[in-house]
Amino acid sequence: IQKVDLTIDEIDKGSFEHFMLKEIYEQPISIEDTFRGRIAMDHSKIFLGGISDVLPQLSQARRIIIAACGTSWHAGIVGEYLFEEFARIPVEVEYASEFRYRNPIINEDDVIIAISQSGETADTLAAIKMAKEQGATILGICNVAGSSIPRETHAGVYTHAGVEIGVASTKAFTSQVTVLTMMALLLGKTKGHLKDSVYKELINELTQVPDKIRAILKAEADIEQIADTYKDANNALYLGRGFLFPVALEGALKLKEISYIHAEGYPAAEMKHGPIALIDENMPVFVLATKDKSYEKIVSNIQEVKARNGKVIAIVTEGDEVIRKMADHVIEVPDCHEAIAPLLTCVPLQFISYHIAVMRGCNVDQPRNLAKSVTVE
Amino acid sequence: IQKVDLTIDEIDKGSFEHFMLKEIYEQPISIEDTFRGRIAMDHSKIFLGGISDVLPQLSQARRIIIAACGTSWHAGIVGEYLFEEFARIPVEVEYASEFRYRNPIINEDDVIIAISQSGETADTLAAIKMAKEQGATILGICNVAGSSIPRETHAGVYTHAGVEIGVASTKAFTSQVTVLTMMALLLGKTKGHLKDSVYKELINELTQVPDKIRAILKAEADIEQIADTYKDANNALYLGRGFLFPVALEGALKLKEISYIHAEGYPAAEMKHGPIALIDENMPVFVLATKDKSYEKIVSNIQEVKARNGKVIAIVTEGDEVIRKMADHVIEVPDCHEAIAPLLTCVPLQFISYHIAVMRGCNVDQPRNLAKSVTVE
Repeated sequence: IQKVDLTIDEIDKGSFEHFMLKEIYEQPISIEDTFRGRIAMDHSKIFLGGISDVLPQLSQARRIIIAACGTSWHAGIVGEYLFEEFARIPVEVEYASEFRYRNPIINEDDVIIAISQSGETADTLAAIKMAKEQGATILGICNVAGSSIPRETHAGVYTHAGVEIGVASTKAFTSQVTVLTMMALLLGKTKGHLKDSVYKELINELTQVPDKIRAILKAEADIEQIADTYKDANNALYLGRGFLFPVALEGALKLKEISYIHAEGYPAAEMKHGPIALIDENMPVFVLATKDKSYEKIVSNIQEVKARNGKVIAIVTEGDEVIRKMADHVIEVPDCHEAIAPLLTCVPLQFISYHIAVMRGCNVDQPRNLAKSVTVE
Repeated sequence: IQKVDLTIDEIDKGSFEHFMLKEIYEQPISIEDTFRGRIAMDHSKIFLGGISDVLPQLSQARRIIIAACGTSWHAGIVGEYLFEEFARIPVEVEYASEFRYRNPIINEDDVIIAISQSGETADTLAAIKMAKEQGATILGICNVAGSSIPRETHAGVYTHAGVEIGVASTKAFTSQVTVLTMMALLLGKTKGHLKDSVYKELINELTQVPDKIRAILKAEADIEQIADTYKDANNALYLGRGFLFPVALEGALKLKEISYIHAEGYPAAEMKHGPIALIDENMPVFVLATKDKSYEKIVSNIQEVKARNGKVIAIVTEGDEVIRKMADHVIEVPDCHEAIAPLLTCVPLQFISYHIAVMRGCNVDQPRNLAKSVTVE
């Protein structure tokens, strides 16, 4: 028997109607908890004590394989984009269930990163046990201290998001992405791919995330109104490019999980290879369209959706007037570096899913058929 | 102006109501055309003239990156499983649109394989141009001879599937998978990972595919009845594991493209991480469940779906009595090696989509919003 050290506050909904809502609101704090003690006061440096011993292996890695399931798999794809961009290490993101059963190629100079909120996900645990036997270096990014995955890894970084009760993960996801961002920046700096000025600028951007999320949280009532417009949808699409492609996947999963609406995420350019056939006046399309290097491309994707009479709800950078004229609804997030945008843009999508689920009378914190931690295969 | 050399037969529907149906039925022939002259008469060897000059680079490749869109991207995932299993080369499958815009890591010892039926897919073409500038070896797997992608590559293998008119790809997909299977076997043999006996056995299996598909084609009327049962569905899920995970993606895409039903493919084990919340008595779930090393796992996935009252349509190996007792419908395919199963199991799913689309009055050969070849970004 393990004693769990929790304050009442942590397992109480407080004034919130659901744990999920409480956890959405906790994100400025949980993200701060994730980087507390890991970012220098003057924002000049990142320390990640949990992986300092394996930093040589990590920076020499020929390849990083991220193994995860569900929401953690989405965080893994954000990680892929971050590691490739900043640390210039090729990353493969694997569904843990597929990876473990297909005789994967694992070399001793590969680093495997397991991502799991609970640290108990059966397929992920089995995947790292297999990779460990083959000599790879195994890292974990988990939330629950002392759980099975951290015990099995060579090193790792806890997310410190606090207890997450809602089955649909919110703050655990943003803390996973925060850890991955810190790891990618640290590695990029260690490997010499990131100039000191850029490194510091990005650290600075990361430290501003909690306040920027606070600004987004203030828009809850407006987002609730948008949710009301689409609460009876049977289907939804979520589109994003680059760093925001995995946010599209995660936004869709949230809606599926708690509102039972069939939502699907896609890289925006793939729309023309099939999903666009689904688009008519009944199809809400959530588009992640903040200002970044693919902004012009995403604007033309929005035009394509509108040309087929789809409904566009766009997540845009504060002050965007171009998309406001095209989209049915816009939700603004504060301006930020594109690599930081996943942490901000996922929050309005959490609200959308939450409110639609509440309006549909669904059990938000305990959706049908789902368990918080998938400890069976 | 380029003269196109076509017989009337190739651009005429003949006795078929739609090109798509004709192309489904052509697959025994188109697959034979794909391996004609490339497999020794005694089934002892594979020759791929188009890549013989680059075979050294290919067998020394540190990594293969497959860049594609839509159906070709699904063929690419089958390729990933084949190359990793038989040739033991790590493979990354990229959405061409994502790959080209995200400053990917490309080394001179990487091999990039572009897959595109038309050879004109804009994002795929741009992706290989970029990779070529960075010194990688570029191969193409295309259907249309002399198209832009083959002209841009160092080497490649044509699929020889013949002209494909239906917008929803069928025979082009199976020919792409046939080429990838031949490449993976040839590479596995060249690299010494495949024993001669296994190599020959798999070649032999591959040559049996046309006859086995002929057997599946005979079941069209039965499959049409199943289509009739689910023609009014609003949603559908497709589940598979291992080699059949990409077939689940492709089956779902076919239904989306021509019937406008929102269908989504998933690796079966991911179901518990979200999509299972969608399952109720209105949700048809197509499960790829032929006898292979994950058979027991997929059987338990079927039980999970049935426990939530989902409707299960299972694609099973001939004579399977276990799943017949659980599933609402079974469609049998002939027994085969698990690596060959994608070529067989995709065919019943093509029929399902075709018949549902016809019953819904959709324009099968020219679905709304879609173009045969996506030559714009």
